[in-house]
Amino acid sequence: MQILSGKEVAQHVYDTLTEEAEQFLEDFGYVPTLAVVLVGEDPASQSYVAGKKKACLSLGFGHKDYHLPADTSQEQLLDLIHQLNEDSSVHGILVQMPLPDGLDPDKVIQSISVEKDVDGFHPQSVGNLLIGNPGFVSCTPQGVMEILDYYHIATAGKHAVIVGRSNIVGKPMASLLVQKGRDATVTICHSKTKDLPSITRQADILIAAIGKPHFVTSDMVKEGTVVIDVGINRIEDASRKRGYRLVGDVDYDQVAPHCNAITPVPGGVGVMTIAMLMKNTMQAARQFANKEVK
Amino acid sequence: MQILSGKEVAQHVYDTLTEEAEQFLEDFGYVPTLAVVLVGEDPASQSYVAGKKKACLSLGFGHKDYHLPADTSQEQLLDLIHQLNEDSSVHGILVQMPLPDGLDPDKVIQSISVEKDVDGFHPQSVGNLLIGNPGFVSCTPQGVMEILDYYHIATAGKHAVIVGRSNIVGKPMASLLVQKGRDATVTICHSKTKDLPSITRQADILIAAIGKPHFVTSDMVKEGTVVIDVGINRIEDASRKRGYRLVGDVDYDQVAPHCNAITPVPGGVGVMTIAMLMKNTMQAARQFANKEVK
Repeated sequence: MQILSGKEVAQHVYDTLTEEAEQFLEDFGYVPTLAVVLVGEDPASQSYVAGKKKACLSLGFGHKDYHLPADTSQEQLLDLIHQLNEDSSVHGILVQMPLPDGLDPDKVIQSISVEKDVDGFHPQSVGNLLIGNPGFVSCTPQGVMEILDYYHIATAGKHAVIVGRSNIVGKPMASLLVQKGRDATVTICHSKTKDLPSITRQADILIAAIGKPHFVTSDMVKEGTVVIDVGINRIEDASRKRGYRLVGDVDYDQVAPHCNAITPVPGGVGVMTIAMLMKNTMQAARQFANKEVK
Repeated sequence: MQILSGKEVAQHVYDTLTEEAEQFLEDFGYVPTLAVVLVGEDPASQSYVAGKKKACLSLGFGHKDYHLPADTSQEQLLDLIHQLNEDSSVHGILVQMPLPDGLDPDKVIQSISVEKDVDGFHPQSVGNLLIGNPGFVSCTPQGVMEILDYYHIATAGKHAVIVGRSNIVGKPMASLLVQKGRDATVTICHSKTKDLPSITRQADILIAAIGKPHFVTSDMVKEGTVVIDVGINRIEDASRKRGYRLVGDVDYDQVAPHCNAITPVPGGVGVMTIAMLMKNTMQAARQFANKEVK
């Protein structure tokens, strides 16, 4: 049984991006730059935003921070995004979700220029991915593919079963796996699926993205499968100083012995998300630079 | 065994739209209007375009015809689309595919205003559909849903297996069926799928959209399933005056006796496509009118 270390893959991505950023600076005289917009004081959001800033700094990327008060109006937020769309020193724009009540996340996402949509959440990015056009791929599912590629796990002709149909993981995961070149047979399951174990037991690659701790148990997997655990759930743990620990959607201890390969939580898919955001920012900067050169 | 008559469903749609168009004219003083752009002299395309015109006329919709020569440049075509985007008397724009060599279909599709994209092929429409946002749904998969709804065939908790991953049928079909409210468990199969019959035999609803005559045989379906045949294939038939007849992707004679319900070819899904185009044009006109009123 192989443990698929997201930590190792992310490190590899960061090493590559550090070199690429140096070369980019040499070639074009500026660095790939990400603008991060945070509205309000949600502590989890603040910590995510801090993680993104840290990643930018460590790679030698540029970083611009916009922290708006919780009572920011829709119009003020859209104005800022419009400015960032026009700002040629910004290559990628990320608006940290969730937004405070009263702000419409769909309108905000759709206001971001598709060329700077490094989160891949804009409907046009989502459509491009499903169609097979070039464009930005949302970070978590892209991170899953990066792990599979790093460990040479082929998807062609495999039956990939995705548990969960969220817009940020399940659906784009299916879009990726079904494309020509990836060529997986893809099944999407969710809360309304009947006899889920009979379907998940068919999976050559099982992707759990349902947001329920220890949801996938050993009776739901076939022997020798590959399990990708996208879940990050807090469960109480009095033995930890902070009072909780992080677990995935998979009951790891029970399931892992039956797997050919499995991602742990933490240190699996979770750490890939910011790495892919950085990769997308690099891609956005490249596209901008290539357009400028023309 | 029930035959799901697309002809009957389409007639029902046309009856409703005729009434709606009358009411719309009364309410707003103009009629829903579709612009159809044809480039070149492909006979099949000419016949499709003629069918769309006929449908507009019979419903009392407005219709504008643009027939450009095969040597039209990309720029000329984009100029026309730009004009139609700006033209407030046009609510829907359809560019007949395929385009002659030398014209880039992706660029052309992306140049159509999302508000007038009645074919639902624009990446933003494709993305909106997958996300679950409002927007235009591509016509053939929408026609399948219309048939299922008309015959009260529920999809929630059912296992829908789609054979074929095209951008115009298979993928948007999956997008529709997996949405909340539709709630099907969805599997997408294609040419790289291993042991296809073992998967199609699990289908409560089997959607064949692979473009191969008589591809789905009786060993591929379970007893009592619902079969939706999206294929329209010409096969030689010396007994017919025109030398061919139309058959679906399903071996109807062999498969039908095992089904709970099945769409025939012709008279099944095929006739729904133009009906849904008209429905989308009505929707486009309504959205335009509502915007005007505001």
